[in-house]
Amino acid sequence: MVKVAIVGASGYTGVELARLLHAHPEVEIACVTSRQNVGEELAAVFPSLQGAITQVCDDVDVDLVCSKADFIFTALPHQTAMAVVPAFIRAGKRVVDLSADYRLRDVAVYEQWYQPHTSPELLAEAVYGLPEVYRERIVQARLVANPGCYPTSIALALKPLLERDLVDAATLVADAKSGTSGAGRSAKLGSLFCEVNEGFKAYGVANHRHTPEIEQTLSHIAGSPIRLTFTPHLLPINRGILSTCYGQLKVALSSADLHRLYLEHYAAEPYVRVLPQGVYPNVSYVRGSNFCDLNLTVDVRTGRVIVMAAIDNLVKGAAGQAVQNMNLMLGLDEGRGLGQLPLFP
Amino acid sequence: MVKVAIVGASGYTGVELARLLHAHPEVEIACVTSRQNVGEELAAVFPSLQGAITQVCDDVDVDLVCSKADFIFTALPHQTAMAVVPAFIRAGKRVVDLSADYRLRDVAVYEQWYQPHTSPELLAEAVYGLPEVYRERIVQARLVANPGCYPTSIALALKPLLERDLVDAATLVADAKSGTSGAGRSAKLGSLFCEVNEGFKAYGVANHRHTPEIEQTLSHIAGSPIRLTFTPHLLPINRGILSTCYGQLKVALSSADLHRLYLEHYAAEPYVRVLPQGVYPNVSYVRGSNFCDLNLTVDVRTGRVIVMAAIDNLVKGAAGQAVQNMNLMLGLDEGRGLGQLPLFP
Amino acid sequence: MVKVAIVGASGYTGVELARLLHAHPEVEIACVTSRQNVGEELAAVFPSLQGAITQVCDDVDVDLVCSKADFIFTALPHQTAMAVVPAFIRAGKRVVDLSADYRLRDVAVYEQWYQPHTSPELLAEAVYGLPEVYRERIVQARLVANPGCYPTSIALALKPLLERDLVDAATLVADAKSGTSGAGRSAKLGSLFCEVNEGFKAYGVANHRHTPEIEQTLSHIAGSPIRLTFTPHLLPINRGILSTCYGQLKVALSSADLHRLYLEHYAAEPYVRVLPQGVYPNVSYVRGSNFCDLNLTVDVRTGRVIVMAAIDNLVKGAAGQAVQNMNLMLGLDEGRGLGQLPLFP
Amino acid sequence: MVKVAIVGASGYTGVELARLLHAHPEVEIACVTSRQNVGEELAAVFPSLQGAITQVCDDVDVDLVCSKADFIFTALPHQTAMAVVPAFIRAGKRVVDLSADYRLRDVAVYEQWYQPHTSPELLAEAVYGLPEVYRERIVQARLVANPGCYPTSIALALKPLLERDLVDAATLVADAKSGTSGAGRSAKLGSLFCEVNEGFKAYGVANHRHTPEIEQTLSHIAGSPIRLTFTPHLLPINRGILSTCYGQLKVALSSADLHRLYLEHYAAEPYVRVLPQGVYPNVSYVRGSNFCDLNLTVDVRTGRVIVMAAIDNLVKGAAGQAVQNMNLMLGLDEGRGLGQLPLFP
Repeated sequence: MVKVAIVGASGYTGVELARLLHAHPEVEIACVTSRQNVGEELAAVFPSLQGAITQVCDDVDVDLVCSKADFIFTALPHQTAMAVVPAFIRAGKRVVDLSADYRLRDVAVYEQWYQPHTSPELLAEAVYGLPEVYRERIVQARLVANPGCYPTSIALALKPLLERDLVDAATLVADAKSGTSGAGRSAKLGSLFCEVNEGFKAYGVANHRHTPEIEQTLSHIAGSPIRLTFTPHLLPINRGILSTCYGQLKVALSSADLHRLYLEHYAAEPYVRVLPQGVYPNVSYVRGSNFCDLNLTVDVRTGRVIVMAAIDNLVKGAAGQAVQNMNLMLGLDEGRGLGQLPLFP
Repeated sequence: MVKVAIVGASGYTGVELARLLHAHPEVEIACVTSRQNVGEELAAVFPSLQGAITQVCDDVDVDLVCSKADFIFTALPHQTAMAVVPAFIRAGKRVVDLSADYRLRDVAVYEQWYQPHTSPELLAEAVYGLPEVYRERIVQARLVANPGCYPTSIALALKPLLERDLVDAATLVADAKSGTSGAGRSAKLGSLFCEVNEGFKAYGVANHRHTPEIEQTLSHIAGSPIRLTFTPHLLPINRGILSTCYGQLKVALSSADLHRLYLEHYAAEPYVRVLPQGVYPNVSYVRGSNFCDLNLTVDVRTGRVIVMAAIDNLVKGAAGQAVQNMNLMLGLDEGRGLGQLPLFP
Repeated sequence: MVKVAIVGASGYTGVELARLLHAHPEVEIACVTSRQNVGEELAAVFPSLQGAITQVCDDVDVDLVCSKADFIFTALPHQTAMAVVPAFIRAGKRVVDLSADYRLRDVAVYEQWYQPHTSPELLAEAVYGLPEVYRERIVQARLVANPGCYPTSIALALKPLLERDLVDAATLVADAKSGTSGAGRSAKLGSLFCEVNEGFKAYGVANHRHTPEIEQTLSHIAGSPIRLTFTPHLLPINRGILSTCYGQLKVALSSADLHRLYLEHYAAEPYVRVLPQGVYPNVSYVRGSNFCDLNLTVDVRTGRVIVMAAIDNLVKGAAGQAVQNMNLMLGLDEGRGLGQLPLFP
Repeated sequence: MVKVAIVGASGYTGVELARLLHAHPEVEIACVTSRQNVGEELAAVFPSLQGAITQVCDDVDVDLVCSKADFIFTALPHQTAMAVVPAFIRAGKRVVDLSADYRLRDVAVYEQWYQPHTSPELLAEAVYGLPEVYRERIVQARLVANPGCYPTSIALALKPLLERDLVDAATLVADAKSGTSGAGRSAKLGSLFCEVNEGFKAYGVANHRHTPEIEQTLSHIAGSPIRLTFTPHLLPINRGILSTCYGQLKVALSSADLHRLYLEHYAAEPYVRVLPQGVYPNVSYVRGSNFCDLNLTVDVRTGRVIVMAAIDNLVKGAAGQAVQNMNLMLGLDEGRGLGQLPLFP
């Protein structure tokens, strides 16, 4: 049994990590931290965990965490994460960091979109934790930067097209829609039930911080720099992201051709499901699971391809992918603890 | 008091017409029809109307309707509408038809996307009821084809750009999201609460019937043929459409420049609100009202413009626009009966 | 045109007052206040009001408000309200206070459930603004204490039974469910979308502050002291309260008998709708309107009566009833500005 | 590996059985049936199952099912279930029937609330599958009648009170609220998204078919006949039941006393969680899990006790309890396959 810590356990990603790790047969949750709940049971913060998770929240104390756990998930806000991650690494722990702090390789880009970086020396070492792209490197990594939810869905949607150079990269648009858990668990006016429910709007238009992360991955896949337009929207649901991606095809391909290509491309991937033709991804079909559902259509009238990707932003978009990365880093079966089917309805 | 009929009153558009016309000071609801509820009070079908609307549902009998009403709203499915509209016109009534039957000027296009047309002779006369584009012609019309919900939002979003030739028409993408009332009130598996709630998906990808209608209006505005990619999605909310539209700018313009242009363009329009810069349209800010809220951002990194339009699909997207058209046709103040502010939250 | 002020306009009750008063033909919104939004347009706080309400938020300054308005709605939290209401009254203004501060006649009861009262001298004068019970006194009042949302629904549900002494008062239970707007617009963890959506729970069990208010009204109606069990629950919807009330009948009555009695009892009330037998009140049938929908069933197997009442907590449960009270106080038609039908769906 | 069949797999209970049985390490889904989907993959009906469940739907053919499976779950509507269950039993299979057909011991009561019973001979043998009450008998059973969702929650809520005779049985009221999946997956107008969403209402008031089932269990527990008032309501959520139960205490007990009693009473039960005092059951804290969360408060002002129970209607209220019963019948660990924690948010 590997002893793991969840640092920053009182957010939605934290409780989801607790849920998934509790179901993991080779792992023991040995430490949970939450600054605002020190001394409280995590199950008091999240009654869903009652009777199953008995851990009491510690403060975010590096020595304490290191004394209790060997593998560490940091589910902290950006900037807060990089205040502790270097110490965990120095102490010889392996870390999956779920913040944005180690996702961008170029410190200048990070600092342009976020704020000054306090441990840039780790950027070169950190591996971007998207197994479908970086699996081999993840296996070796001490520090994995777990991808953002939007970037995961968009990278998986576009990878087959970019790898084969089938789409004009200058025409890419990603119109993405996320459930509200993506906004976190802090008490903000804009996240109140009555502000979100029965509403729908875009936000962060043309300036969302996931943009450089998306572009970094797509550029890596394509082998040349890519800029796209990315528009996130807020969905009045708890969980789920649907990203609808558009691009002009470079060659005339039918929907059937492309569908076959996607099926082949992802045939060996355990968590990417290319749905049957005509069945469109729906966030409700991946809820609670680590699946990314994909499908696509060619708009023959305009020569454009439309690729749709659905994930659960808290699972494949956060905690599930983090567990998948941990499994790879620990040499376990990649799907250990991730076998639960989606909860529908 | 003008005596009006609502033909096909048992759907969501029907009950919305009843709500709006009840609030209209110069109109009397003189007849409501519903095949499956003949002899029943409309308020028994929709208890929301209890104590206010006392009309009993008639069958869809042309003579009966004509004997009771002088102005007729047909809120029937396509194909069913054109079975009765010609008779109403022959009887000298003025009609706002809320179906798709008279929206497309080219009968061949209609028949390609729908089925054979049984009264093509009226197509030349029918006026497309988008006041912001066709106001003068609506004033003179006997038969107004009330626009579809998606087309209304997309046409209003793109009109200022197309009129001034600011955007490359070959690059247009409209990613639209609609509340579930747009799917109508028939008992279909896909419209069940548990199938829609906490879900989100695209549908009719690259083949939705509103596509030719959108293109007809955009082409008219631009003065040249336009093809765009249109992707509708189903939102787990009752009411509201948000359309996010993308296009490559032909000239370098700042968000501020374009915002000013939109403000000027729509300054005289009573139901188009260009929101302050940075305030994005939200379907919850137009709920129950006839407003179309607009805003835009230029993605300077890619030279693309993103225009967002929010409407209530049952009001500006259906019943409200129908009343606006009626007002124009009757020479009344255009906003008569449409003064209610949005219901928030 | 009466000049009115909305003191505390940045909450959900405030924006609802703005919506309703905007539709009122004999009233002008002359002043809106909001401490945290001083200098901002109210339409910047609530974009739903864009293009219609142009007032800028003032600070809560008694002299300023009195210089601008003749009739004042105070939509402030309890304790904050009583800090300004006495000054408004001294300045000769008439006031509808939507807080709890003047609802309880007995200062000791108030102080037991809330905190010390700073203007108990006004308690004797304040009239409880439930027109169906206190209409004559409201007409004369300078200060009306607008009822709570739960108390309104429960009092109207039980009034016919208690007036005729048909139910054993010792057996009364009110199981009530409220939409989330009832929790107000402050940024609290418990009101976050993800905490409320797809959830349902009781709160304030056996100790909610509306209990003494409910009991005061029921006791007044019955003519003897009544204690009941009141359990509020939080519904994952924006608006609406459904109260399901239970009591043991003292005499054997059929559902039909009691239904007839309710119909007669409320025949003259403009905002109470006793639905046809078998049609149960649904919050979605009163949304946005001032109606209270009622119905009842006798459980013949147990001799118990079940009365259900549905209101929109922001309208008949707050802003709408406040406008109804204002109309009565000003000698206007009681329904002025309240004619909008419910928004369904 | 036990080979199991899901007879009637295309409803919400069917897909939930598939989800849970897929996670069960000692069971193999060997057969699924669905009359309207014969020849289709179950994963085509429910894309959530894509990539995991490969079974094709058979017709409901007794011989076929018996040739494929040794343990049978019948998830059919009442009346349809009893058309096949006797044949399964005759063929020597063990059956958990999720319909209402074998829940009521008295055929006359069944026929009063449902319709004629076609296999009354099995009623004496069938065991009511509420493990917290009938565990020993379930272990021996060939045919288990899986309890209804409402009855499960109400029986568990009241059991400790009734066993100790602490409450006046004549005063019992159960005010219950259920998510919409409880209404099934057939295309009915009343289950449409727009009819349910943002709505809330009671239904089946004083005549819901679960009433005799609830009373049968409560009477058994109490050892004397009990009649209660039961009011179900429809919640605009997918999953979850909250039952709020009321009764007059026979002895003066504090909330703390009763809470302790509940804790002790259920200490050994794996799926009943008595929450800490002051933490009220919320359907969102049991979502997707087999837990029944309980808590209670004594209303000292009225001498009434309020007990709240939350379950997931599709798990502890249907498929989860069915698996729990299967485990007992097969001599497996009672919690096999049921270890998943609730999905929050």
